[in-house]
Amino acid sequence: MKDFNYYAPTQVVFGEQSEEKVADLVKHYGGHKVLVHYGGKSAVRSGLLDKICNLLREGGLEIVLLGGVVPNPRLSKVHEGIELCRREGVDFLLAVGGGSVIDSAKAIAYGVPYAGEVWDFYSGKAEAVTCLPVASVLTIPAAGSEMSEASVITNEDGDIKVGYSNDISRPKFAIMNPRRTFTLPPYQTAAGVTDMMMHTMERYFTHDTDMTFTDALAEAVLRTMKDCVFAVLKDPEDYRNRAQIMWGGSIAHNGLTGCGVEEDWSTHSLEHELSAMFDVTHGAGLAAIWPSWARYVYKEEISRFVQFAVNVMDVPNDFSDPEGTALRGIEAIEHFYHAIGMPINIHELLGREITEEEIREMARKCSHDGAIRIGGFKRLAREDMEAIYRMAK
Amino acid sequence: MKDFNYYAPTQVVFGEQSEEKVADLVKHYGGHKVLVHYGGKSAVRSGLLDKICNLLREGGLEIVLLGGVVPNPRLSKVHEGIELCRREGVDFLLAVGGGSVIDSAKAIAYGVPYAGEVWDFYSGKAEAVTCLPVASVLTIPAAGSEMSEASVITNEDGDIKVGYSNDISRPKFAIMNPRRTFTLPPYQTAAGVTDMMMHTMERYFTHDTDMTFTDALAEAVLRTMKDCVFAVLKDPEDYRNRAQIMWGGSIAHNGLTGCGVEEDWSTHSLEHELSAMFDVTHGAGLAAIWPSWARYVYKEEISRFVQFAVNVMDVPNDFSDPEGTALRGIEAIEHFYHAIGMPINIHELLGREITEEEIREMARKCSHDGAIRIGGFKRLAREDMEAIYRMAK
Repeated sequence: MKDFNYYAPTQVVFGEQSEEKVADLVKHYGGHKVLVHYGGKSAVRSGLLDKICNLLREGGLEIVLLGGVVPNPRLSKVHEGIELCRREGVDFLLAVGGGSVIDSAKAIAYGVPYAGEVWDFYSGKAEAVTCLPVASVLTIPAAGSEMSEASVITNEDGDIKVGYSNDISRPKFAIMNPRRTFTLPPYQTAAGVTDMMMHTMERYFTHDTDMTFTDALAEAVLRTMKDCVFAVLKDPEDYRNRAQIMWGGSIAHNGLTGCGVEEDWSTHSLEHELSAMFDVTHGAGLAAIWPSWARYVYKEEISRFVQFAVNVMDVPNDFSDPEGTALRGIEAIEHFYHAIGMPINIHELLGREITEEEIREMARKCSHDGAIRIGGFKRLAREDMEAIYRMAK
Repeated sequence: MKDFNYYAPTQVVFGEQSEEKVADLVKHYGGHKVLVHYGGKSAVRSGLLDKICNLLREGGLEIVLLGGVVPNPRLSKVHEGIELCRREGVDFLLAVGGGSVIDSAKAIAYGVPYAGEVWDFYSGKAEAVTCLPVASVLTIPAAGSEMSEASVITNEDGDIKVGYSNDISRPKFAIMNPRRTFTLPPYQTAAGVTDMMMHTMERYFTHDTDMTFTDALAEAVLRTMKDCVFAVLKDPEDYRNRAQIMWGGSIAHNGLTGCGVEEDWSTHSLEHELSAMFDVTHGAGLAAIWPSWARYVYKEEISRFVQFAVNVMDVPNDFSDPEGTALRGIEAIEHFYHAIGMPINIHELLGREITEEEIREMARKCSHDGAIRIGGFKRLAREDMEAIYRMAK
């Protein structure tokens, strides 16, 4: 068991009436002039953006708008946001959208008070010591960024997609109205659930097997999400199950399911190269990688994969054959991914196999030219990364 | 499902090395002059109090000491603390101990900046709008006060024990070193686990049965705590299981296991009268009340008690006899309470039956002379309270 630090200060305001509280919340957390940051069409079309802006204005707040954040959010948009906030004297960032918009807002929040180039934080050159307050009106449950300290930005100059984590960027509040997720298409819904489950799976596969309470909480997250996704794919307006998923996305990634254990995160690192190169949906990319990662590493601690198979995937435990049970757990999640419309390898994801050249290029970038290893469950060197991409191709 | 607000900003610093960080944490959260608040012998004898005071002094902080907090903490001690803090210009309250010490610290924190009488908040006459920052070095996992917004104070003038909840008193940080719980006697250990499980059970028994994710998290808490207590009763120095219990006590009461559901809290209200009148250990008092409460109310929604029996108490589900399954769940927790040395009724708790006069007096106070009802699962009037005390006597 590892010593740990758990810090999830974000105030979650959840439910059908939650949006009404936005102006009071911004003021409670010290905002006067708000950058309302958003993506594209859906926030406009649904009327959510107008509603939020009106509520903020009626609450006596000044607002500045910045839209156009894309999935795998770009550094250029972050730069645009930093300049705009400085010019307008913005003191609060409100992201209206999903993980990409929140991540973009976090990067802007770091950048505004920083004299240097914001990419310094993401490239590991500097640590942020202060940032503007960030909060969100969540519309896509998936990334968990609404309660997390993490953000991931893509630098178009070199297709480099990297994350930076710092507690100071944990959002002040998150408004979550499950009705806002009714219009999410099936593919985005399934990819979102895949992403949130993976946030907990990256923590669950560990050699710190003595933290039984963390395991039980993680299994509660995984089992519930796995169950609820079918209901919302069948009926997109199933409030009850949309709500479980929306709340599950936050809990899956606010740190709770990793307390006391060494975490892994290889699948995320391997996927980041995939989406940097091919601009795929992050959750779908994770589904395309994970089964190959699992088959590459399961022998490091078979009992852990048995526990996953039995406690999460409902595979009957063949006590005489732990390895068989472990492998059936990996097969079971492949069946689950297919059942919700997710790929289980890269050619299902892209519609073609990747080439040896692409494999080597992704492993090169993921390993920083061989300089770093990734993963906690099994430390992966560049050649391991290549092997996994090859298994997954 | 209810709309909900989840807010648990306390930074948890957990593990064997956690105490070393105390001075940095106090300074990070704005403290300069610290009231170190504690109970009695054990914090002194174990050397913890000295260690914490030395670390604070070495960190450049001034300290003022106030010990002598007793279980079911008293208003007179709170008054003493308020005067001391004002006189000394204290700006931060550090509780070293368990729930009683933390609750006493919260009450002092409300009182220092308040011009009126601090009891106003507990008697419902006023709402606190500001308070000094509070934090803790936890030594007894049970009350969950280290992450909660609640505190319970006993006014000796009339033996009135009441709670007051306000988010502003949520502790800034909680230092948790499981080793500090090795010396807890078996009775205190078992009563602590009973208390933490009850914090989640008060939320679990609800008619909002559509919040399956909250259920799954609650069941994870209950199953893990139920399992771990046997290990630590057998071996008090079992770090692994002491750790699960310590962390479980916080999660059981930080709000997570009640998201989206109407909560009950009758058993706590009924027990408060019991410990106000007889000064018993809170957890043991809860065990003495709950089975009778359960048998009095289970018909309000039998399926909920079936779920508890099957998912928490491992009772085989007799699908043809839900009522039988529900009742076997209640029996199963009685067996569990006996197995860990807890009472299952009031005469086991006190060594004698309570009188009709005592029953009527407790119900009178619990119902505010018949003016209020308690409970969410079943609304209990004064005569219901009497009936439950009578069943439990």
